[in-house]
Amino acid sequence: MGLDNTVTRPHEQLARWLDADMTAVNVLIRDRMASEHAPRIPEVTAHLVEAGGKRLRPLLTLAAARLCGYEGDHHIRLAATVEFIHTATLLHDDVVDESARRRGRPTANLLWDNKSSVLVGDYLFARSFQLMVETGSLRVLDILSDASATIAEGEVLQLTAARDLATTEETYLRVVRGKTAALFAAAAEVGGVIAGATEDQIAGLRGYGDALGISFQMVDDYLDYGGAGDGIGKNLGDDFREGKVTLPVIRALAAGDADERAFWTRCIARNRQEPEDLARAMALVRKHGALEATRDEALAWAGQARAALAPLPDHPLRAILSDLADYVVARVH
Amino acid sequence: MGLDNTVTRPHEQLARWLDADMTAVNVLIRDRMASEHAPRIPEVTAHLVEAGGKRLRPLLTLAAARLCGYEGDHHIRLAATVEFIHTATLLHDDVVDESARRRGRPTANLLWDNKSSVLVGDYLFARSFQLMVETGSLRVLDILSDASATIAEGEVLQLTAARDLATTEETYLRVVRGKTAALFAAAAEVGGVIAGATEDQIAGLRGYGDALGISFQMVDDYLDYGGAGDGIGKNLGDDFREGKVTLPVIRALAAGDADERAFWTRCIARNRQEPEDLARAMALVRKHGALEATRDEALAWAGQARAALAPLPDHPLRAILSDLADYVVARVH
Repeated sequence: MGLDNTVTRPHEQLARWLDADMTAVNVLIRDRMASEHAPRIPEVTAHLVEAGGKRLRPLLTLAAARLCGYEGDHHIRLAATVEFIHTATLLHDDVVDESARRRGRPTANLLWDNKSSVLVGDYLFARSFQLMVETGSLRVLDILSDASATIAEGEVLQLTAARDLATTEETYLRVVRGKTAALFAAAAEVGGVIAGATEDQIAGLRGYGDALGISFQMVDDYLDYGGAGDGIGKNLGDDFREGKVTLPVIRALAAGDADERAFWTRCIARNRQEPEDLARAMALVRKHGALEATRDEALAWAGQARAALAPLPDHPLRAILSDLADYVVARVH
Repeated sequence: MGLDNTVTRPHEQLARWLDADMTAVNVLIRDRMASEHAPRIPEVTAHLVEAGGKRLRPLLTLAAARLCGYEGDHHIRLAATVEFIHTATLLHDDVVDESARRRGRPTANLLWDNKSSVLVGDYLFARSFQLMVETGSLRVLDILSDASATIAEGEVLQLTAARDLATTEETYLRVVRGKTAALFAAAAEVGGVIAGATEDQIAGLRGYGDALGISFQMVDDYLDYGGAGDGIGKNLGDDFREGKVTLPVIRALAAGDADERAFWTRCIARNRQEPEDLARAMALVRKHGALEATRDEALAWAGQARAALAPLPDHPLRAILSDLADYVVARVH
């Protein structure tokens, strides 16, 4: 809104454009995370919801709906739905990963216990479906229940593929879609659906969210080996320590010799790591251009995200979404 | 169907009446629990789904639909939905309770790990919503998303009420509804909804499921202090060891003297138990008539379940459902 776009980052621009909507989303989230009888529920939820994430997913839903001319209020419900699904998966992820910190704060499983994280996640998931039902749109329910299944399937796949050096790029991409892209895609798509956009536009929004999510996750996976551990919220070396077989590892392994393969096998497959191993792993992914290749893939997906916006109306929000795709990969430039 | 009803138990009669439907449900369950990419999912699910539970919840859905004259096939989807929700909650419960055995077999969290149980539960929950969406009934989605929220809220409430001797009977009843009655009620109600039954009949089915579920859970809670540990699947003393404040404890505590209160405080609130404490706990609930009172409550709810069936059509399935309410409490006679 007449702001200096050269200094404001795209997700901040989105948040400003959609400020009134986002306020309504936050009110609805606070209302629906309440539980008269089980105060543990809002305690745990507030810890995460109010930790100050970027709220990218609900912003995508709001932006998609507004971009397609929506004037109703169901997009508020859908944005809250998407944030609840995201929060539920974070709660369960932290149990699965045995995480101690998220967004620079202790995780809920550490502050309360794993039990609370599992059950409060289930509650939020159920609440998200109640919100969807209120929109009266079976198509929205179809899209978001499919996304939920893809997310859970991707998480199981990630679990069983961990420490498996035979993991293919195809499996990696499937995990990435489950972890990140499926909810980005659904978040954008339901915004278009509720706005009554054309099928071309809805497909464009879905394609945008999918490609943006993949790009976003690939950048995360890049930073795990190539970042500076500079407080972006990502801890350098986490994936290595957890034995996740991400794109940098897949590429470095494919290009490595027998000695290097033995190194990866010991560290990832056998989970026998010494403190100095991370430095060698980082050197190997650099040496074989695996980091660069990961960045190039992320860039290509960002390009796909921008291109997918073509059928959408000419609107300042479209330009911001396009900038957002660039911004996501700018972290690795 | 012409079988000797005096020797066949009501749930077996239900299963025979609905044999063809139940076969279709089992085929659908096996189809939908599959995951092309994550074979861990059907492994974990099959372990539970094929453990030979009584399938009471899907049978309730099928019976309700058939009793109301339904001739379509959505009741098959809804019965599978209900079984998936139940299986998902069992997977998450076993993580929360740190259980080692269920239905006489090692639990999934023991055979695989907590992570798999959490994520496969999430997957089944998402799959259950996909199945509901296929019925095209927003009312069904409304009922089952409400039930899911009640279940999760009840579980959190049970978690925070554990070891809390100030737990009231009202809170106890809320936990019982969450644990058992909410899904029984929804299972029966959606059968009526999909069949296009009258509002009176739908309310009757819901009331039946609710009262049956409460009665069922109270009998379980009775058996934890009054059972013989005879392989019914219930382990005598589990609730006592886990510090669950169930109706027998609430009633015995209310009637006890200062010395007894100190005993309950040490064992339940402070979780300091000796092997011989269970015998004293069992003696106390007997001495104060707390076991008898629990049985009487269960009997009263079974009576309510039978009465709730009044608006339903005169049909052999109605008689079997009525017998089922008696049978559930017969375990404590």
